Amino acid sequence: MPPTRVPAIHLGPDHDLALGRGIEAGGGRLVPLDEAEAVVWKGGPDTFPDRLPDAVRWVQLPSAGIERWFAAGILDGGRIWTSAAGAYAPRVAEHAVLLLLAGVRGLGEQARATSWRKAEFETRVATLHGATVAIIGCGGIGRAMIPLFTAFGAEVLASTRSGTPVPGAAETVDASRNAELWARADHFVIAAPATAETAQLVDADALAQMKPTAWIVNIARGSLIDTDALVRALRAETIGGAALDVTDPEPLPEGHPLWSLPNAVITPHLANPSNGLPSLLAEHVRANVERFAAGETLLSPVDIERGY
Amino acid sequence: MPPTRVPAIHLGPDHDLALGRGIEAGGGRLVPLDEAEAVVWKGGPDTFPDRLPDAVRWVQLPSAGIERWFAAGILDGGRIWTSAAGAYAPRVAEHAVLLLLAGVRGLGEQARATSWRKAEFETRVATLHGATVAIIGCGGIGRAMIPLFTAFGAEVLASTRSGTPVPGAAETVDASRNAELWARADHFVIAAPATAETAQLVDADALAQMKPTAWIVNIARGSLIDTDALVRALRAETIGGAALDVTDPEPLPEGHPLWSLPNAVITPHLANPSNGLPSLLAEHVRANVERFAAGETLLSPVDIERGY
Repeated sequence: MPPTRVPAIHLGPDHDLALGRGIEAGGGRLVPLDEAEAVVWKGGPDTFPDRLPDAVRWVQLPSAGIERWFAAGILDGGRIWTSAAGAYAPRVAEHAVLLLLAGVRGLGEQARATSWRKAEFETRVATLHGATVAIIGCGGIGRAMIPLFTAFGAEVLASTRSGTPVPGAAETVDASRNAELWARADHFVIAAPATAETAQLVDADALAQMKPTAWIVNIARGSLIDTDALVRALRAETIGGAALDVTDPEPLPEGHPLWSLPNAVITPHLANPSNGLPSLLAEHVRANVERFAAGETLLSPVDIERGY
Repeated sequence: MPPTRVPAIHLGPDHDLALGRGIEAGGGRLVPLDEAEAVVWKGGPDTFPDRLPDAVRWVQLPSAGIERWFAAGILDGGRIWTSAAGAYAPRVAEHAVLLLLAGVRGLGEQARATSWRKAEFETRVATLHGATVAIIGCGGIGRAMIPLFTAFGAEVLASTRSGTPVPGAAETVDASRNAELWARADHFVIAAPATAETAQLVDADALAQMKPTAWIVNIARGSLIDTDALVRALRAETIGGAALDVTDPEPLPEGHPLWSLPNAVITPHLANPSNGLPSLLAEHVRANVERFAAGETLLSPVDIERGY
């Protein structure tokens, strides 16, 4: 069947007002699964249908990181799968910039203080102005950070898989050259997808090369950083600090040293809180339904071979 | 004596490399006090000369807030006094935006947590995207915030003494209309000078009108907020919270409720830490020496009658 003007789309596992409106605003109509040519899924992999009708040519998943969908063996090559990568980009970028600012200006230990420790803290307050921030894995989320960091007077070095120049970055390198960045950038935002290749990308070697004032922000996945090596670096103060929205292990267990190190800030995977999901995802769905109806390339297609 | 091409400038109370270079880069030459036509002062009022030579037509003070200089009775009408207002604007603006972001996203209580309280925190995470931020007293520091808030997708309402439209603000009101803003804006940054008129500008009435999700940032002076009324509002959770770089009393005494309220974040007057003083002030001094040499209007003149 060729692309229709009003694609038949199933929304599951149950109805959602914002997503339903997004589908209709994009030009689609809501149908039961057995009549669908596309599926918009707002639940997790556990409730996903065991078998999709052959007529389903496209599935929109609700999250940006999709390891759980790969692990559940749901993604097949018989149709197009799209993630929500990009939908939450502005929200995650906001959190990443907040975490780096908080780190660089020492807000973590200031927020924990219960007395006026001005003289002690003052010498550790730095600025993003004039700093060089490397965004490791500069996809949609990283790109959304660039105008923010630029507004604060920082310069961005982007690392991407391909090395194709990222607009707004002072320089883009391909991921094989990440090692050149550790000693060169002032601070780091880890924003790469979790794959076999990116596991423990930030290891003891990388940490050893960083400047003693460098802050590392992780808004991607905990597995991208060697936690034990990070804790050693934080204890030895060989780097400035780490502000982590994701951890390994996650959830971070009570009593873990990262909870009490003065140069660590932990936010419990809140860069993209679920309370913001419907409206941001609905806009992404609307845009993709519009593209699907017009037979155009969809946003955030999953690359099944590469695993993200 | 008419303006010279190479003005004779005294730098006191002692030499400073960055400021000395700033004076020379601006076209001035360093001289002892009794030969000076202008003074650049990097110390406090306590070390300031009891009497200035009549030939001194201009004094550059080292701070943006100058109440202590007024209180010490140093400022006279016999010459031009300039403050450092504006010199530190980008740095203070960075801190103000950090504090508002931290408030809106709940970073204060997250930074203080010692266990993974995701479900509890998640419902309280909001965003600056789409928010309306009122900057009360939108001078040089407020203006430096506007491109930052705009980059995050927030809209700025500016309140100034004159009401003259501030570039980049969606709307500017004069200070007599501040009361209209309390119920209207989503969040507030207090950035007005400390004067008799601005004392306790944010009082119980103002707080009562604010939205229950409103965050207040104060990077100006503690006296602009009625602390007791604020503590009551924070305890009753009638506003979202307060992130304060300045307090009344200041320093905030140990055991004060603001140290332990979950919806309060205190930074001990670090928006413009003194470690950043020389380079930022030096640039301001350079610009003013250049203007002085050319007989142009100086940056940040003190209005002795208005008291800032």
